[in-house]
Amino acid sequence: MKVSELGEFGLINLLAKMVEGSQDRRFASWQQLITGIGDDAAAWQGDTSIQLATVDSLIQDVHFSLGIVSWEDLGWRSMAANLSDIAAMGGIPKYALVSLALPEQTEVDDVTALYQGMIGLAQQFEVAIVGGDVSRAPLVAITITILGSTGSRDNILTRSAAMPGEQIAVTGYLGAAAAGLEMLTRELQFDPEVTACLKRGFLRPYPRVAEGQLLVEHGVKAAIDISDGLISDLNHICEASQVGARIEVDRVPVEPAVATSFGDKSLELALSGGEDYELLFTGRPDVISKVRKAIPCLITAIGEVVADKGGVVLLNSKGSPFHLNKAGWDHFATG
Amino acid sequence: MKVSELGEFGLINLLAKMVEGSQDRRFASWQQLITGIGDDAAAWQGDTSIQLATVDSLIQDVHFSLGIVSWEDLGWRSMAANLSDIAAMGGIPKYALVSLALPEQTEVDDVTALYQGMIGLAQQFEVAIVGGDVSRAPLVAITITILGSTGSRDNILTRSAAMPGEQIAVTGYLGAAAAGLEMLTRELQFDPEVTACLKRGFLRPYPRVAEGQLLVEHGVKAAIDISDGLISDLNHICEASQVGARIEVDRVPVEPAVATSFGDKSLELALSGGEDYELLFTGRPDVISKVRKAIPCLITAIGEVVADKGGVVLLNSKGSPFHLNKAGWDHFATG
Repeated sequence: MKVSELGEFGLINLLAKMVEGSQDRRFASWQQLITGIGDDAAAWQGDTSIQLATVDSLIQDVHFSLGIVSWEDLGWRSMAANLSDIAAMGGIPKYALVSLALPEQTEVDDVTALYQGMIGLAQQFEVAIVGGDVSRAPLVAITITILGSTGSRDNILTRSAAMPGEQIAVTGYLGAAAAGLEMLTRELQFDPEVTACLKRGFLRPYPRVAEGQLLVEHGVKAAIDISDGLISDLNHICEASQVGARIEVDRVPVEPAVATSFGDKSLELALSGGEDYELLFTGRPDVISKVRKAIPCLITAIGEVVADKGGVVLLNSKGSPFHLNKAGWDHFATG
Repeated sequence: MKVSELGEFGLINLLAKMVEGSQDRRFASWQQLITGIGDDAAAWQGDTSIQLATVDSLIQDVHFSLGIVSWEDLGWRSMAANLSDIAAMGGIPKYALVSLALPEQTEVDDVTALYQGMIGLAQQFEVAIVGGDVSRAPLVAITITILGSTGSRDNILTRSAAMPGEQIAVTGYLGAAAAGLEMLTRELQFDPEVTACLKRGFLRPYPRVAEGQLLVEHGVKAAIDISDGLISDLNHICEASQVGARIEVDRVPVEPAVATSFGDKSLELALSGGEDYELLFTGRPDVISKVRKAIPCLITAIGEVVADKGGVVLLNSKGSPFHLNKAGWDHFATG
């Protein structure tokens, strides 16, 4: 069987099972592990705090095209995607390692611009870039590892803690990143304000690091960052928590600039587009209320967690099923 | 300027300077940092111990060819290369994250064989694979991050601690990995014992994790693992420590099976071949003596650290300069 037939998530599940099967519970590393493969970041019990680690690769012409992304924006986005995984655990990012693969004909100025973008965002979160490597390769690949921490075993957000009856909520607006990509790829023209918003959404996402920590502080237990798309990422929560989810599509906070520019297509961009790096989380109604008061950004309740493990069900305002063609992003999906 | 003109190490130096220039000393992450870019692993002060982190990428047709390496061996080698960086800091490896880029036509069985190789070696050091990602890509790229720790600030091996007057020593024998690669690439035929030794040297290197910890315990302060080649890696120590080095080439422990099979070329393979993952370290003669008694593997003193910053000088048995054409491995070097 080819990996394209198994799909990205099928492959991850298979590898996770292999690794799990190899566990020797006598080893301290396994004993101290809290979350392994299958959450936004790995978490284990350190000496006095929980340690977090996450890694992600961005591959040229798979995750980005140098035709539409500047090197500096690419650096920012790569760092943002990884910081967002620490945010989704409710953690504090601290250190970054960067593994860079580059064609030998790459301009040095482009590499320094890439680093400028990474450093620019890292500094905002007081994250130090402390290591990595560079390799020759026929294409550009950027792999960033982020190490972070969080207070205690109770102070962590996981994908597996959602409970039936909880509300499902999301930070900020959705759809700008996917709309920005489409605008740049198809060279669409919008008014300057819309253009700026969509560009920023796609090229300069701002990870919800402070918000993730506030979620934890106010009693939220389950979260994920929206990288694959709202539906796809909510499905990850459903699978890990062994629950189902109902979303009222009319309540999904579509970015206004996306609604203006993409009309009917804007809901699809918000539901399936991905790369917005907002946080999707669940909590009892009183927890969501507290969170709404504590966090300055928009917090929208968009549905609820249900016991029925039927995955994510979309509903219109009348409570009837709503159908969408596209349902997320699979790295090995064909077409 | 192209990165090929600047070279791998020139590029790393440039990026390290950029990152250093961006440091804000008020940030806890920078205050707690012990070694950043430019050592085998990053090290920082954790709550009660020193935390270590390292990352390395292996790129298809740059670092390996699937024509001569099986998927399982590839997994082993990738894990070995990264564990070796923790060994070179005198640390204990604990957790691994794996970022995998794969063509969609890759066989699932090949990916599981790759993981089998990684798991096989990881288990020997009680290292848990706890996260990572998989991406579609036109070629195979394996990026492994290893997290580890070591006791205290004094219990760490760095590239920058070598002092004039110290002896230079190395664990084990050198040259088998480079000889193995050459044997497999050129389809050379040797007797079964030699073939097995060279194959093992190239495909199944065993990182000196226990030895690194024993070096630290017995007072060694400066070390590096031999990944680029003895001369090249010793040059890294010289630059970081602001010293020079003299090596008596006759004392270099060339792997006997390499000497048998490659004759005159064997010294070059031992000096410049790389990927042996032995430890190269420095210490006062009394420290080297203690180390020799404490560590069961071969320990050979091959030269001394000098104050003159003239890089690595090779000497023959009469103390005259010895010249070698090839001097290491630069990822962006042309030719």
